[in-house]
Amino acid sequence: MLDTLNSQDSAWRQRAKAVLPNGMYGHLSTRLLPEVYPQFFARAEGAMIWDVDGTGYIDFMCAFGPNLFGYGDREIDDAYIAQLRIGDTMTGPSPNMVQLAEAMVAQVSHAEWALFCRNGTDATTSAVMAARAVTKKSTILRARGSYHGTSPWCTPVQAGTTEADRSHQVWFDYNDVESLRAAAAEAGGDLAAIIATPVNQHTFLKQQLPTADYARAARAICDAADAMLITDEVRSGFRVVQDGIWDRLGAPPDLSAWGKAIANGHCLSALLGNARARPGIEQIFVTGSYWFSAAPLAASLVVMARIKDGAYLSRITDTGERLRAGLDELAARHGVGFEQSGPVTMPLMTFADDPDFRAGYFWCAEMLKQGVYMHPWHNMFINTAMTDAHIEATLAAADRAFGALKAARATLPPNTRLFGASADR
Amino acid sequence: MLDTLNSQDSAWRQRAKAVLPNGMYGHLSTRLLPEVYPQFFARAEGAMIWDVDGTGYIDFMCAFGPNLFGYGDREIDDAYIAQLRIGDTMTGPSPNMVQLAEAMVAQVSHAEWALFCRNGTDATTSAVMAARAVTKKSTILRARGSYHGTSPWCTPVQAGTTEADRSHQVWFDYNDVESLRAAAAEAGGDLAAIIATPVNQHTFLKQQLPTADYARAARAICDAADAMLITDEVRSGFRVVQDGIWDRLGAPPDLSAWGKAIANGHCLSALLGNARARPGIEQIFVTGSYWFSAAPLAASLVVMARIKDGAYLSRITDTGERLRAGLDELAARHGVGFEQSGPVTMPLMTFADDPDFRAGYFWCAEMLKQGVYMHPWHNMFINTAMTDAHIEATLAAADRAFGALKAARATLPPNTRLFGASADR
Repeated sequence: MLDTLNSQDSAWRQRAKAVLPNGMYGHLSTRLLPEVYPQFFARAEGAMIWDVDGTGYIDFMCAFGPNLFGYGDREIDDAYIAQLRIGDTMTGPSPNMVQLAEAMVAQVSHAEWALFCRNGTDATTSAVMAARAVTKKSTILRARGSYHGTSPWCTPVQAGTTEADRSHQVWFDYNDVESLRAAAAEAGGDLAAIIATPVNQHTFLKQQLPTADYARAARAICDAADAMLITDEVRSGFRVVQDGIWDRLGAPPDLSAWGKAIANGHCLSALLGNARARPGIEQIFVTGSYWFSAAPLAASLVVMARIKDGAYLSRITDTGERLRAGLDELAARHGVGFEQSGPVTMPLMTFADDPDFRAGYFWCAEMLKQGVYMHPWHNMFINTAMTDAHIEATLAAADRAFGALKAARATLPPNTRLFGASADR
Repeated sequence: MLDTLNSQDSAWRQRAKAVLPNGMYGHLSTRLLPEVYPQFFARAEGAMIWDVDGTGYIDFMCAFGPNLFGYGDREIDDAYIAQLRIGDTMTGPSPNMVQLAEAMVAQVSHAEWALFCRNGTDATTSAVMAARAVTKKSTILRARGSYHGTSPWCTPVQAGTTEADRSHQVWFDYNDVESLRAAAAEAGGDLAAIIATPVNQHTFLKQQLPTADYARAARAICDAADAMLITDEVRSGFRVVQDGIWDRLGAPPDLSAWGKAIANGHCLSALLGNARARPGIEQIFVTGSYWFSAAPLAASLVVMARIKDGAYLSRITDTGERLRAGLDELAARHGVGFEQSGPVTMPLMTFADDPDFRAGYFWCAEMLKQGVYMHPWHNMFINTAMTDAHIEATLAAADRAFGALKAARATLPPNTRLFGASADR
């Protein structure tokens, strides 16, 4: 049956095998997802995606974050297209670069300047470079398991990197003030920066919200050591508050990295910083062929106007709360140990006593077959295009999927697809 | 007069100073250009750009390379927009990723697979990582002064980097086989890769075309040492041949980095590789939020169809030859020591006996005032939208600018704007 249903996807996978590394690379490879997941997609609109065989799904991955206002948002895309027709990648920047910097500085408490780039990794790497330049020190503290991109200094897979790429790094445990202090002590007089995701979003593990004590301890350590506090908001930015998350916890960073939601799918990332960090960013040389392109900035200006307005946030929060409560109730009724973690707008859904994710894979596959695209070990995202009808359909699918899981769980085979793969992401 | 002419540009510069590092950062900052150069641009079309004060220029910088088929090419941009309306940054890739990989593999002799990314730096960095992964060795050989992007391992400015970022690198002189052999000997048994730009395009220095001996020596050294040969085609790609430049010299690389012209201004770069390099790229983990976006791939499919057709290449070559011959003739007539280097489609224009570029700055400023945007120390680019009329207008402006330079040269003041800045780029 799968062969018939997914014949287009199978055909594209065959062609892809010949000309793309591993048939598909990076975080959009379905290699570590249940086998039933399609690899190639034909179309996206609002809260929905359609695979190349024409099957539609309510998409809770939101392109891994960029989709905040729905796929193909007309106003945002029209702004992009209008600017593209006037001038996009030119020999000089457009003034809208200044306007967007002003809008982001106005929105994010600690920000006094902005630098625009393309990848989240560009922003996190530039932040580390700026911190080293301004402090004239080298050591950075990182939380174990936190993802900051795939530059050699931070890619989670060591293949192709050298030990030197990871030099001057000391690790600590998220939300653990003692561990953070011990790492700072190890850095001694060479502490350049602490880099942290505002919310702990490890793959495979339950998410953790930061405690105010932990965030403020990081701020205090940086103050005492004349070091820079860097938050990596690439995934979380504007999905929880209309500001930097740690600004709201009383631990404003000196530098922060942004991306994904800030342009609703158009290619844009940004590094924001305060006056203290400015001499650092003004010393380093970072640039890129497309870092000054005007069209993504035009799209982001529409996004930032909506961020400022704030109605989007109550909408996605309401949607996320409704989904969380509905799923919890269904799971309890079926008596399956279902766990939801992280902010309701960025939920991670896992099962208790499921070390190899066999229950999660089964449940996600059951959801997928009913037209709901979920992820068994990566946090998901809520967007404003999700309606009550989408949530109702999702809950109806979940009811059946929990039932199927309950019936099948005792006989589920080991998860050979993921087995041995956790170090591979 | 400048205050009146450039009042909008001045106003935007003032606002930019408050919210952008140094008022503007990266390679599009005009800090190291003659003072008369505008910073902000309002519009681009074909071969022309217009600054925010409404002045138009024939643009020989082509956005530093992306503009190959003219700004705002209707067919390319329509393909982008059509795909944007269907689905751009989604939870999975579109099949057009496979189609573009097939098109690039068909076009570039050594290529058997493609990986798409966003910055040129993504492609060069991934190439180095892939080479290290497949060879299980670390040392890379680099040509002095060659630009490969702004990741910590390769940014030309050391601020914000550590010595560890540049470890496992040995330098050699471009086109110098003995220097290359000495560097390889220094690497000894740890040689992972040689990375080289196919054409030597140092800023501030005359360009050098590669000798076949040099390119083949690099290939032979890699073969003997079981190392990878990497060419950085980001700037030169498809502007000289419809293939990899070193493929045509009998020195096919194992890996090659591409960008700029491959999507005519849309945000796309690519790493191509052969079967030998494939186990390397399949081991490393590199990815990005927008690396799978479908719209730039759609634009690049139109570009690649034109690359295959080839008519563009004779057109830009003819245009470049006409410009080079015309300028040489005028310069000789005026008796100014004018030097043109590099391929005619990527000309660098400098003056003899002009160590601080005071003559170059004067001449470029005179050209700019007549509506021709040239660069005093970076190579320029020819695009297919440049017509005979553009070249005639450029030559007429050059005639006057050479005359003005001849009259002023003896009394030109030192170039304080560039002085001490060469290490800063």
